[in-house]
Amino acid sequence: MARPDGRSADDLRPVTFSRGWLAHAEGSVLVEFGRTRVLCAASVTEGVPRWRKGSGLGWVTAEYAMLPRSTNTRNDRESVKGRIGGRTHEISRLVGRSLRAVVDEKALGENTIVLDCDVLQADGGTRTAAITGAYVALADAVGYLRERGALKGNPLKDSVSAVSVGIIDGEPRLDLCYDEDVKAETDMNVVMTGDGRFVEVQGTAEGAPFDKAELDALLELAAGGCTQLGVLQAEALGR
Amino acid sequence: MARPDGRSADDLRPVTFSRGWLAHAEGSVLVEFGRTRVLCAASVTEGVPRWRKGSGLGWVTAEYAMLPRSTNTRNDRESVKGRIGGRTHEISRLVGRSLRAVVDEKALGENTIVLDCDVLQADGGTRTAAITGAYVALADAVGYLRERGALKGNPLKDSVSAVSVGIIDGEPRLDLCYDEDVKAETDMNVVMTGDGRFVEVQGTAEGAPFDKAELDALLELAAGGCTQLGVLQAEALGR
Amino acid sequence: MARPDGRSADDLRPVTFSRGWLAHAEGSVLVEFGRTRVLCAASVTEGVPRWRKGSGLGWVTAEYAMLPRSTNTRNDRESVKGRIGGRTHEISRLVGRSLRAVVDEKALGENTIVLDCDVLQADGGTRTAAITGAYVALADAVGYLRERGALKGNPLKDSVSAVSVGIIDGEPRLDLCYDEDVKAETDMNVVMTGDGRFVEVQGTAEGAPFDKAELDALLELAAGGCTQLGVLQAEALGR
Amino acid sequence: MARPDGRSADDLRPVTFSRGWLAHAEGSVLVEFGRTRVLCAASVTEGVPRWRKGSGLGWVTAEYAMLPRSTNTRNDRESVKGRIGGRTHEISRLVGRSLRAVVDEKALGENTIVLDCDVLQADGGTRTAAITGAYVALADAVGYLRERGALKGNPLKDSVSAVSVGIIDGEPRLDLCYDEDVKAETDMNVVMTGDGRFVEVQGTAEGAPFDKAELDALLELAAGGCTQLGVLQAEALGR
Amino acid sequence: MARPDGRSADDLRPVTFSRGWLAHAEGSVLVEFGRTRVLCAASVTEGVPRWRKGSGLGWVTAEYAMLPRSTNTRNDRESVKGRIGGRTHEISRLVGRSLRAVVDEKALGENTIVLDCDVLQADGGTRTAAITGAYVALADAVGYLRERGALKGNPLKDSVSAVSVGIIDGEPRLDLCYDEDVKAETDMNVVMTGDGRFVEVQGTAEGAPFDKAELDALLELAAGGCTQLGVLQAEALGR
Amino acid sequence: MARPDGRSADDLRPVTFSRGWLAHAEGSVLVEFGRTRVLCAASVTEGVPRWRKGSGLGWVTAEYAMLPRSTNTRNDRESVKGRIGGRTHEISRLVGRSLRAVVDEKALGENTIVLDCDVLQADGGTRTAAITGAYVALADAVGYLRERGALKGNPLKDSVSAVSVGIIDGEPRLDLCYDEDVKAETDMNVVMTGDGRFVEVQGTAEGAPFDKAELDALLELAAGGCTQLGVLQAEALGR
Repeated sequence: MARPDGRSADDLRPVTFSRGWLAHAEGSVLVEFGRTRVLCAASVTEGVPRWRKGSGLGWVTAEYAMLPRSTNTRNDRESVKGRIGGRTHEISRLVGRSLRAVVDEKALGENTIVLDCDVLQADGGTRTAAITGAYVALADAVGYLRERGALKGNPLKDSVSAVSVGIIDGEPRLDLCYDEDVKAETDMNVVMTGDGRFVEVQGTAEGAPFDKAELDALLELAAGGCTQLGVLQAEALGR
Repeated sequence: MARPDGRSADDLRPVTFSRGWLAHAEGSVLVEFGRTRVLCAASVTEGVPRWRKGSGLGWVTAEYAMLPRSTNTRNDRESVKGRIGGRTHEISRLVGRSLRAVVDEKALGENTIVLDCDVLQADGGTRTAAITGAYVALADAVGYLRERGALKGNPLKDSVSAVSVGIIDGEPRLDLCYDEDVKAETDMNVVMTGDGRFVEVQGTAEGAPFDKAELDALLELAAGGCTQLGVLQAEALGR
Repeated sequence: MARPDGRSADDLRPVTFSRGWLAHAEGSVLVEFGRTRVLCAASVTEGVPRWRKGSGLGWVTAEYAMLPRSTNTRNDRESVKGRIGGRTHEISRLVGRSLRAVVDEKALGENTIVLDCDVLQADGGTRTAAITGAYVALADAVGYLRERGALKGNPLKDSVSAVSVGIIDGEPRLDLCYDEDVKAETDMNVVMTGDGRFVEVQGTAEGAPFDKAELDALLELAAGGCTQLGVLQAEALGR
Repeated sequence: MARPDGRSADDLRPVTFSRGWLAHAEGSVLVEFGRTRVLCAASVTEGVPRWRKGSGLGWVTAEYAMLPRSTNTRNDRESVKGRIGGRTHEISRLVGRSLRAVVDEKALGENTIVLDCDVLQADGGTRTAAITGAYVALADAVGYLRERGALKGNPLKDSVSAVSVGIIDGEPRLDLCYDEDVKAETDMNVVMTGDGRFVEVQGTAEGAPFDKAELDALLELAAGGCTQLGVLQAEALGR
Repeated sequence: MARPDGRSADDLRPVTFSRGWLAHAEGSVLVEFGRTRVLCAASVTEGVPRWRKGSGLGWVTAEYAMLPRSTNTRNDRESVKGRIGGRTHEISRLVGRSLRAVVDEKALGENTIVLDCDVLQADGGTRTAAITGAYVALADAVGYLRERGALKGNPLKDSVSAVSVGIIDGEPRLDLCYDEDVKAETDMNVVMTGDGRFVEVQGTAEGAPFDKAELDALLELAAGGCTQLGVLQAEALGR
Repeated sequence: MARPDGRSADDLRPVTFSRGWLAHAEGSVLVEFGRTRVLCAASVTEGVPRWRKGSGLGWVTAEYAMLPRSTNTRNDRESVKGRIGGRTHEISRLVGRSLRAVVDEKALGENTIVLDCDVLQADGGTRTAAITGAYVALADAVGYLRERGALKGNPLKDSVSAVSVGIIDGEPRLDLCYDEDVKAETDMNVVMTGDGRFVEVQGTAEGAPFDKAELDALLELAAGGCTQLGVLQAEALGR
């Protein structure tokens, strides 16, 4: 059972990071996982939300959204529907949590960084591309703050990346494209730090429930993928 | 480091199922995990949503919500705010997905069952109690349909239950109450079928990221908890 | 024409108050009027809404809502619809007004008490059960404040209770259950203080308009019901 | 204690009906109770809402609203706020219910009449003016249908009008203007048919609760006012 | 090709201004352009929106809306739909911008004037009637402020009025009524100051695109109309 | 007074069209006017909205939106605010109207084409870039339909483009960038067909009102710009 694009089971799709894609944002990157394209913009503002004022701690949050024609058939805009869907909410929360896992909020000081992850084109793995790209945009926004002398230490304790894995026709595969995603019996998104520890593990049986051995196989595959992504992020950041 | 209520690390809180708690619903149960109390109501309607019409398949979905004073301090109603929060959306989707994992939609025929899980009192683990209780209400609703001869086969392929686990002060613990939940470094919700396979694994590093050994310890603890919950569900259903 | 449950025309249904039903709320009661079950929670917060700040006066308000499967057929959640219906608004306002009629806002000081009345099961008379139960929860919340020395005097000037009355097949009846409610030609909700005076009188001709003699008969029946409810409230509060 | 405009306690304010105020509506009237001005428009459409289709019955409903500067200080538009307030909902429902009390839905056939009552200027008694004026607009819309031969019988079984009464400084007064309304200890809106029976009685203790004698005095005053309004409606309609 | 009401191509419809139409507003006028009737109310409040505080500048803004039965067939209320339509937004912004073009915000000081333009009856040209009438209401509100000594200078630098023009059957016509408006190949709204300069020019090809000669003919017609409207405004204001 | 980027007064910024930017859309283009970047996607669906069914006519509509960090400082998402702003509504309507001016709806048959214009980066002229790019995406979507034999004739009667013009320091300038836009005394957006006729003319005095001579100068400048844009569109489409 060959993969649609001829990759082997443990291959990532071609991954690229185009830094500085936006003129106005303090950090920005157009990240591509194959045909999946997410525009990640980091916006820095002085100060923090009201509930955090005076704490000396910074705040990092994220919003995820899809353009109406990023997908195969057009979806109505959430702004037109007047409400944000459950999936959008869920992914926005996941991206924010993943980034905060590597942020030292004390070192950030009372500054806020909002990561906007807008899916321009979707072909599976939009949430993992968003996390992986958002980290790069976040790193640039932190660099912007450091250059201006706004920070004392380094608020980035580590890097963070994410990848999807799944079982298709009994075979564990890395970084599913859309056609694989809809066929996967089990679907898992794994978020890991640069030092190889887990930030989030979200596995879902889409068809039959899965056992411990399958879970282990998927986690190992994901760990390999995140290691590669960490290297690519570092290269993109010129490190 | 004793637990707040004196349990050992691998003990569930006292779990009770009060079936038939509502006069009108086709299935209903008030489930309690210690002080956490969730009212689960199963509503049966003939027919399925438009996008599924003519497929011969049934549909099971869920909505989760909290009463404003189920928590320690009062929360504004989502109906008053005019929008459903991200957490509510996320849990509603999780509960629905978990139940569908054990439902044979063909055997259900073109019938819809909606599970309403309303948290009357919250003390940690509301989503896992909701899933565990909703299964019992669902089983009663299926029984209602079978008694009326509306089904040919048995749409329940297995049972499903859920439990939270977490690491507190380095110790993996089962079925966290609220005070433990806020202190957990890692927090995981595990949904399992009666035959011991995974439906959902959602682990989140709240503090430091976690490694594979910690993940394995938590999964083992959760598996033990779900086994016990499966026995209690069967007892409650008089099996 | 016997009543569905064999009561005589001037009998209340069995009424029970389960105080302290919720662990977190400063006052709470599960009130039952027959099969109608309303969970009333009183939440105390220091301070008052902005428009009342600096007045020295307290504030008591209420929100009423129904669980989706409290009724015979499931209703969509107002949080999902994104708007509160007219009936919900109307009843929330009625409950708040009824309670404020017996509250000395000066004696309450700049404290706010919110009464949440959530209908768990509906069988007619949910608004009157809500008012009657909310008074008991309010009394407990006031007791909580007094025990902590937060109040100088007693902000409860009197008790308040409510009952529905209606004309079915020409006969005035007390405390209608749902089956009677839908058949009533005239439907009236009466809110009275413990000393037998009126706080609210809301009479509606559902079928033919009613005359003064019918109105008087209904008011007398309601007065008798409220007197009984006042005794039951006092007993529940251990007075 | 003279009234602000010198009336005696049982006097209505000057009441006028300007029929045909709108060119497009099937029935319309600008009704004035003193300085209170409400524009009532009746819109006829063939057919009924979905839930009533095939019943052979018509439907009459109403919507009440206030222009932002109808009041002493400007109120934000409900369209701008994105939600309808409780008071608006409550009054819309009251107006609709009051009109339906005198409509024979069978004689109306499957036609819908919507009554829009927009308060152009408010000086107390806007809901009672709305009901009283809406009846006249409704009568014109029914006339429009009858002239076109769309109806077999007369769907208007009787007329309906409404008036407010209240106790100010211990004195029962008819048809309160705004300055009286805010001072009233007890406030009552009474809706009556042309033959002198009650459709709605809504009495609220704004200050001290009221007793049966006070209630009776207010009802008698209101009955006198509604009798006068019925005569004025008939005159306006040229009967 | 005669016009529906017999006017010649460069005639305005009969225009009337009824000042002081509302008892509460600081300025108000019922403006009529033929059968089009718009109620314009100016509300004065001390202070300015937050973003303008401390600037020493005043603020003038406008809201436009239509009553549900101002039109030939009834439209649903925007408050009921829970959202304001694009057309409403667009016209509200246009009215506000047009008025601000003749206001010296420094001379107004930190005061806010809100112009509510509610269309009671629509027969084409509602936005141009709204602008023309709103200026008169604004002038009265400014007069109110000046009488109370709240202003040092005159914040009105000029008058402003507006008129629609269009090409019907190849003929440029002034001040279109609804029946003409729907037939126009090109439709233009022109807002001009009393001294004959342009504030807004909004031309739209409804059918075939238009050329420069047609544009010039329309602008000349509009200029003539605005000159007449300026004279009528001055007369209405007693100047 | 040199322009910020050294252009002369009648120069366009560098304009580029990247066709086929999206894999899924039937037509798509990333259009750039200098630093302004708008992603235009055309989505084809068979059938038309309900109100147009059976007419034999097609439908073309547009939605315009800005990414939160397309601008200099981040704007809240309209999906998060739960409502679409007036400016967004207005521009969406303008884009749709402009495209429909060159569409033969009969030749399109009962097909719908939705143009999504999402501003990725904003530097003035986003609405004119959106119209100009949307035409190219529309042409590609029409090509897609023609290739599949879904159309009999050519639904594109002409091309359409748009440009902004304004007066800065007394000088009329073409295609304003953001820094010029905020300083413009008069701001005008002009939409023209390929044959040099006007579809929309929207001129606004931001500072002092403008006279006929200024208007004429701006229109001439815009006509020149649109001619150039039409040539660039044709080149991009390989004609």
